[in-house]
Amino acid sequence: MISIDLNCDMGEGFGVYTLGYDEEAMPHVSSINVACGFHASDPANMWKTVRLAKQYGIAVGAHPAFPDLVGFGRRSMAASTEEIKADVIYQIGALWAFCQAEGIKMQHVKVHGAMYNQAEKDIQVAVAIAEAIKAVDPELYMLCLGNSTMVEGAKQAGVNYVEEAFADRAYTAQGTLVPRKQAGAVIHDVSLVAERVLSMVKHKEVAAIDGSIIPITAQTICVHGDTPGAIDMIKAIRYKLEQEGIALKPFGLTLK
Amino acid sequence: MISIDLNCDMGEGFGVYTLGYDEEAMPHVSSINVACGFHASDPANMWKTVRLAKQYGIAVGAHPAFPDLVGFGRRSMAASTEEIKADVIYQIGALWAFCQAEGIKMQHVKVHGAMYNQAEKDIQVAVAIAEAIKAVDPELYMLCLGNSTMVEGAKQAGVNYVEEAFADRAYTAQGTLVPRKQAGAVIHDVSLVAERVLSMVKHKEVAAIDGSIIPITAQTICVHGDTPGAIDMIKAIRYKLEQEGIALKPFGLTLK
Amino acid sequence: MISIDLNCDMGEGFGVYTLGYDEEAMPHVSSINVACGFHASDPANMWKTVRLAKQYGIAVGAHPAFPDLVGFGRRSMAASTEEIKADVIYQIGALWAFCQAEGIKMQHVKVHGAMYNQAEKDIQVAVAIAEAIKAVDPELYMLCLGNSTMVEGAKQAGVNYVEEAFADRAYTAQGTLVPRKQAGAVIHDVSLVAERVLSMVKHKEVAAIDGSIIPITAQTICVHGDTPGAIDMIKAIRYKLEQEGIALKPFGLTLK
Amino acid sequence: MISIDLNCDMGEGFGVYTLGYDEEAMPHVSSINVACGFHASDPANMWKTVRLAKQYGIAVGAHPAFPDLVGFGRRSMAASTEEIKADVIYQIGALWAFCQAEGIKMQHVKVHGAMYNQAEKDIQVAVAIAEAIKAVDPELYMLCLGNSTMVEGAKQAGVNYVEEAFADRAYTAQGTLVPRKQAGAVIHDVSLVAERVLSMVKHKEVAAIDGSIIPITAQTICVHGDTPGAIDMIKAIRYKLEQEGIALKPFGLTLK
Repeated sequence: MISIDLNCDMGEGFGVYTLGYDEEAMPHVSSINVACGFHASDPANMWKTVRLAKQYGIAVGAHPAFPDLVGFGRRSMAASTEEIKADVIYQIGALWAFCQAEGIKMQHVKVHGAMYNQAEKDIQVAVAIAEAIKAVDPELYMLCLGNSTMVEGAKQAGVNYVEEAFADRAYTAQGTLVPRKQAGAVIHDVSLVAERVLSMVKHKEVAAIDGSIIPITAQTICVHGDTPGAIDMIKAIRYKLEQEGIALKPFGLTLK
Repeated sequence: MISIDLNCDMGEGFGVYTLGYDEEAMPHVSSINVACGFHASDPANMWKTVRLAKQYGIAVGAHPAFPDLVGFGRRSMAASTEEIKADVIYQIGALWAFCQAEGIKMQHVKVHGAMYNQAEKDIQVAVAIAEAIKAVDPELYMLCLGNSTMVEGAKQAGVNYVEEAFADRAYTAQGTLVPRKQAGAVIHDVSLVAERVLSMVKHKEVAAIDGSIIPITAQTICVHGDTPGAIDMIKAIRYKLEQEGIALKPFGLTLK
Repeated sequence: MISIDLNCDMGEGFGVYTLGYDEEAMPHVSSINVACGFHASDPANMWKTVRLAKQYGIAVGAHPAFPDLVGFGRRSMAASTEEIKADVIYQIGALWAFCQAEGIKMQHVKVHGAMYNQAEKDIQVAVAIAEAIKAVDPELYMLCLGNSTMVEGAKQAGVNYVEEAFADRAYTAQGTLVPRKQAGAVIHDVSLVAERVLSMVKHKEVAAIDGSIIPITAQTICVHGDTPGAIDMIKAIRYKLEQEGIALKPFGLTLK
Repeated sequence: MISIDLNCDMGEGFGVYTLGYDEEAMPHVSSINVACGFHASDPANMWKTVRLAKQYGIAVGAHPAFPDLVGFGRRSMAASTEEIKADVIYQIGALWAFCQAEGIKMQHVKVHGAMYNQAEKDIQVAVAIAEAIKAVDPELYMLCLGNSTMVEGAKQAGVNYVEEAFADRAYTAQGTLVPRKQAGAVIHDVSLVAERVLSMVKHKEVAAIDGSIIPITAQTICVHGDTPGAIDMIKAIRYKLEQEGIALKPFGLTLK
């Protein structure tokens, strides 16, 4: 039986502030990326999110970012690779402690926002992140954008990794993401998105923005949970996959 | 052969700022309490401090505090016990990750500043801290002020603990610390301090501020490393102890 | 023609986070208290809020707080009066600059959360706040809880001040607020609240929780804008007042 | 009688941390750039610095930066021009309030670190900063690197500005700063630096790194106060200038 992992960012509230629909999305995904206090979240919020993941039997990963709470970690920063490495180690550890308190084993690390974007293109950043992950726990997986420099970084550092594809993003004929600023970069049609995910998982291919069919490798598919519409999309993807006999399962369980 | 532990706060720089004489103090103590980013320090600084401790073969503990960087964690805050628990878990985890990266096992947790002061008197705070420590790793020791509510909290939570005495602080006849505001609360005479520590370790007693001799239990003695004078005091204590055949040794090694 | 001021906290979002219903509440109040970045808000958000106030012709005040973003400024902190004074001056200035950029004159300062609660009871805190306000601009008004130590502080410092009453809070026979933990402390009945506000404004009296009628002095009434229900309450209060020929007007205009 | 202004960064401590030699440098410069809490300093520290400036009769300017305390504002950030504008307005206001409390008029604004570097090259950033300054107070001067895009930005926004030269930095034949990474970028010879400053002020020219003599325009010279050696350099510059009958004077006084 084929299975796939759906990963989703969670625990992005902060103090009195809430963000996203964690409780609605949680039952329909298999892995979550938990904010660690640098771009969003705080200790109490992280703990609550880990507890919720445990309750739903979902795999937990750390979601480290640049220290930029007001910019939600979306502004690229000229941090040195040593600073990035230390920031990633710190944030993994902080989340690890809540996993430990709840008797859960952390599955993976996926960096957030601007740090993710820098790691896609800059091999030194990608290697720094990969080395940070491996230094904390060599059993952790690094979650990488498929077909990007992040994968190279993971390989160079010798860390476990998986590749992710985006459910609702258009791809170029070369297999890279169409930049967000370009028309058609984000696909809003729920059925189309579900069809594309099915194609990615079942046939390991997807239609590029120019209509050509490109190969795609992904052990996990990234979905969003921050709007009511996003929740509907997750449900549609899940329904489509299950109809075709494809199970949702954390990649950590499948790869072992 | 008798041994004792000397513990000292370390890694209290932040960004471009330095504080204290870590490199000078490190060779002369056996355990350090490392700031975890809430009252002082940052990821790069924490890593550097853990590396230094490894180099000198010194035991490492986390030094969590209230989130009050500008106040250095010295201002008491009306945080709930749930918030305190989450803050402590987060900070232990952050430091744990650097220990992991350096292949070191964390020995203990000692809370800092205002959180320490609240835990001395408030059993609920003491229990919250103790439960947080145990939740992350039941092998960790909680470092408690001897003869205080902190010890009660550790017992209630069933966490490993050690009691500490202060090298340079005066004690009341009841065995509590003389408040800092009171005359004579801090002892500055280096030889006298060294004599008192020897008495605490060898005879398990010390002269109280009223001249009476009181019993004192301590598996670790707290010393300071933040001024050049403080370094001289540490050296004097160490010399006096070694002259009497008492070895410096992390309590974690002795108690196992 | 009698007039009264309705004041409401605004601009409490932060980065990507939103809080409250600023745009819905703004047209129905006459003064707003703008968060200044210590418990909520950020520079871009403050600017946006000041622009909105200008658009609606509403008076602007600063809403300084303790530096506790994760706790929303609600946790009391043992800050010194010198620290409180400096924190208040800093925050007033930050908001002043946005008023300046929009060609608006700041009307008042109302401290937030735990700082407000400490100023209600501690004359030294109240004086520190009052002195801070006067030091920045002697034409500013300090917004004080009526019948509290805050008024004393304002008088001692010789700063302009107004007293506020709470629309939806019960009062004791002594004219103090019934503590939130006590049953009946918050009144949820919209018509009753509107009636009470009318009584406060027109007759300068209100029914205490024991049924007795107590005198009340208020140049401004505090209302909330953080829930859809709160917006309905503001509208009901305003409608009731206008029906009785009482105009909404910033106190700064009335008192000049 | 010719006069010149010497400007120096000050007030860069934070909480318990100290940085630089403010009290030693202050008597020997004529203008200071005061950190505003985003890359360094805190409200109490800012107030102390403004008081010290008042005591020495020195002109005060704001020194805004990116919100990056741990990186001391030295890491470039992809902030939008709207965010930069809001951040600069906020920080000017915060310092303005302390000037107001001390009865001082703020003279200028000089942005710090990475924001300064971005403004040197990016006209949109330069304009955003210039517009922010003008929005708060059209009498403020923007302190610009001479012969750079910052000057263009100031002109476009129509804000008052002055150009600065660096006492201890080498210049290219084109009149731009030799990048710090290049050998010879920083001049350490105290007498040579004093000679160069004299040449800049008296003859409006200086020797470039290739030996050619280039014209230089500067109403203010930037000096440093963060090491004991830096203090000696300031004194040497001042002595050399005074020997030649050139007075130290804030540019704000000269230009009026």
